[in-house]
Amino acid sequence: MAKEVTKRSENYSQWYNDLVVKADLAEQSAVRGCMVIKPYGYAIWEKMQHILDEKFKETGAVNAYFPLFIPKSFLSREAEHVEGFAKECAVVTHHRLKKSPDGKGLIADPDAKLEEELIVRPTSETIIWNTYKNWINSWRDLPIMCNQWANVVRWEMRTRLFLRTAEFLWQEGHTAHATADEAMAEAMKMVNVYADFARNYMAMPVIVGHKSPNERFAGALDTLTIEAMMQDGKALQAGTSHFLGQNFAKAFNVQYATKEGSLEYVWATSWGVSTRLMGALIMSHSDDEGLVLPPALAPIQVVMVPIYRKDEEFEAVVAEMEKIGAGLKARGISYKIDKRDTLRPGFKFAEWELKGVPCRIAMGPRDLENGTAELARRDTLTKENVPVEGIEERISALLDEIQANIYKKAYDFREANVRKVDTWEEFQTEIVKGGFLLCHWDGTVETEQAIKDATKATIRCIPIDTYENHEEGKCIYSGKPSKGRVVFAISY
Amino acid sequence: MAKEVTKRSENYSQWYNDLVVKADLAEQSAVRGCMVIKPYGYAIWEKMQHILDEKFKETGAVNAYFPLFIPKSFLSREAEHVEGFAKECAVVTHHRLKKSPDGKGLIADPDAKLEEELIVRPTSETIIWNTYKNWINSWRDLPIMCNQWANVVRWEMRTRLFLRTAEFLWQEGHTAHATADEAMAEAMKMVNVYADFARNYMAMPVIVGHKSPNERFAGALDTLTIEAMMQDGKALQAGTSHFLGQNFAKAFNVQYATKEGSLEYVWATSWGVSTRLMGALIMSHSDDEGLVLPPALAPIQVVMVPIYRKDEEFEAVVAEMEKIGAGLKARGISYKIDKRDTLRPGFKFAEWELKGVPCRIAMGPRDLENGTAELARRDTLTKENVPVEGIEERISALLDEIQANIYKKAYDFREANVRKVDTWEEFQTEIVKGGFLLCHWDGTVETEQAIKDATKATIRCIPIDTYENHEEGKCIYSGKPSKGRVVFAISY
Repeated sequence: MAKEVTKRSENYSQWYNDLVVKADLAEQSAVRGCMVIKPYGYAIWEKMQHILDEKFKETGAVNAYFPLFIPKSFLSREAEHVEGFAKECAVVTHHRLKKSPDGKGLIADPDAKLEEELIVRPTSETIIWNTYKNWINSWRDLPIMCNQWANVVRWEMRTRLFLRTAEFLWQEGHTAHATADEAMAEAMKMVNVYADFARNYMAMPVIVGHKSPNERFAGALDTLTIEAMMQDGKALQAGTSHFLGQNFAKAFNVQYATKEGSLEYVWATSWGVSTRLMGALIMSHSDDEGLVLPPALAPIQVVMVPIYRKDEEFEAVVAEMEKIGAGLKARGISYKIDKRDTLRPGFKFAEWELKGVPCRIAMGPRDLENGTAELARRDTLTKENVPVEGIEERISALLDEIQANIYKKAYDFREANVRKVDTWEEFQTEIVKGGFLLCHWDGTVETEQAIKDATKATIRCIPIDTYENHEEGKCIYSGKPSKGRVVFAISY
Repeated sequence: MAKEVTKRSENYSQWYNDLVVKADLAEQSAVRGCMVIKPYGYAIWEKMQHILDEKFKETGAVNAYFPLFIPKSFLSREAEHVEGFAKECAVVTHHRLKKSPDGKGLIADPDAKLEEELIVRPTSETIIWNTYKNWINSWRDLPIMCNQWANVVRWEMRTRLFLRTAEFLWQEGHTAHATADEAMAEAMKMVNVYADFARNYMAMPVIVGHKSPNERFAGALDTLTIEAMMQDGKALQAGTSHFLGQNFAKAFNVQYATKEGSLEYVWATSWGVSTRLMGALIMSHSDDEGLVLPPALAPIQVVMVPIYRKDEEFEAVVAEMEKIGAGLKARGISYKIDKRDTLRPGFKFAEWELKGVPCRIAMGPRDLENGTAELARRDTLTKENVPVEGIEERISALLDEIQANIYKKAYDFREANVRKVDTWEEFQTEIVKGGFLLCHWDGTVETEQAIKDATKATIRCIPIDTYENHEEGKCIYSGKPSKGRVVFAISY
């Protein structure tokens, strides 16, 4: 057998970690909280990047690159932002090492202390708005819509591969607009780009909504989010898009001359998704045999395993597989023929199941004679004998079917785990079972905080497409009037 | 007129800086030595990335991601490496900020001092070989060929946009092999990938060669390089590929079990190119009017400027341009129609010349009547009236011609500035004129150093394709025997 994976029912958290490590996605590095993203994991991230990058560009955004470092004083410019991000961060204090006096190692050279410390960016609003100040003079310079693909650092105390790491990879879009309406429309457009990507490529039935004030980004007037349900019933925030109002424009004094000649502060958005999406992808679909990857993001969509005893058999089978491979390639389907000669087919099957490859073809000498192959699908773990004739079309259709089936399975799971709850007593018993609870809330920070303190549950969002409602009712906690149900859950 | 550019003949260095800033490629940021890569500059870098990434993958390399931070002690493991890289680097000493006692700002929290300082990676050999240790057990695990696209930091005292910045973007490939021969072949293969890219896409006639021991990468047994000649006659090292021997395997104790069962240290290479290529590209081809971009890397290959007085004229011309645009797009040619209504055509012409767009089409109402357009090429600054009929094929061929012409111009310039020099007196007078001097050298570090001290010239490479020679002679400096001419130049 290939590497053993802990069962979900035994230890969900260990199951997740096993998958990440044993499927060769990522591992802990020698640096606390920083991960190594291994080639197989990075190949999935690259697919995500390419698809998202194209979608961003379709909206008119362009890529750029801003500095890794942020002067310490910049963080203090926006009052809420500094509260949110100045706490746990990597602080650069020196620009040189020298030999230690005992000659045995290196020390930070006291003569090379920086006048002002630099912070490794936890997010780039401050340095970018300090730059935009020089790019924006008049209404003709607007809108500006820049995105950057970058690494960021937040000094998390408890880290988990992909879900919460000190360094992670992400993209951050930062846009500047002449009006509040235009900025708000941009924030909404981008959260919908994320929702489409999550649904159509990641096969994750996310829900879109506004964050409650408690859960907003530090410095935002409104935060839009996509929230996904993991298989343990917890929520995972998979992407956010912020309407920042004029906060950063005011903090960095970014004004533009209107057509009429007056000066106005610029309106801002920012939006981002990160390697956390990898965690969401893994936990949405995988099972006790390993990863289940949606075909749209699988680095290898079809794996072919030759069955043989003699070298001539190996060669004949591989020759047939190469023909199939050429047909798949012509259809834009990626494949791999596993020619390793030191491993048994059963071992290979288990390994590719662990790695989540959507389709598997096995063929031996008898299949060659009969013109057949064994075609297995990862999502259902079923297999059938099929004619080799026309197998490429069959696989092409099967990949679509798998993509749809994975989405449906996740969708059905979520629907089975969403419940309306109307009393505080019921809330307390229901929330520990996991899932999303649709509840009335009085709209205050105090109530949300009290519920969180009592149950660890938070408002994941005030839904705006899925579960959107304008139902009047009474807050489950305070009994005060509510204008609609919001989504509560325990979250990652 | 658009923004004025300093003439090359007046002040070459200022000319370069003007181009970078005024053509919107990059600018200095608020952080010392760190640049902002603006969207137009980043679009060129992205094109470089996509082409190189594909070429790397064709060689079997895969992408991965390793941590930004390196534990201080890792740098000391490889004796030469620490000399080369520990000196000027960004040192992270704390992981938290807190409010300063006077309440006016933030300070690094003394309670959050790291036990071991972290260095922002200047290059990743150490952290990667520490990781490879866990990936490599037997010959079956080899070769490993990983590349990463990443940011790195080297605390340069004097910085210049793209050419020398504290933070820069690059790719670094790190490969692990069972034998010295295989590793050396990999290093050679990759320097040739760089040479092909430089010649065929950047239109830069680079020369390939070995570095002299003095100029090798810190920790390498052999460094291969591509060297380009800039228009001021200076050399620019545009990419390097290193044969690292077993130095890093020994420093991080990376051994593998051979087929025969013995344990051997692994053989390594590393290879990289950076955003410095942007500087090389700019300085190879541009002129006093602005950038000259090779069509293969130009974000916009064709710009169309409508000439009009009345709105109806504008609409008719733009409609025709959109037809041409569709034809260009179908041929994979990128284009932009400059519809800005607040700028005169002459201003637009100057702006797109400054930005190096290879082809320009201008059309007015009379052209519409005649079925003609004015087609201008950036490299020669010539223009002609051509029929609109078939203009797409004409442009497609013209772009190829421009690409070839730019290369040829740079090639001819280099050939006109390469000279054989045989005496020390002649060397001293010739070197100040710029260009590459092909000279005999006795092969010693001392002689190279003495020549550098006297003239600032260094050995750019011991050439292996262009100018390869095995001519015997006498060292220009020491008079001792030499086995071949090497390339001396003043370099960036």
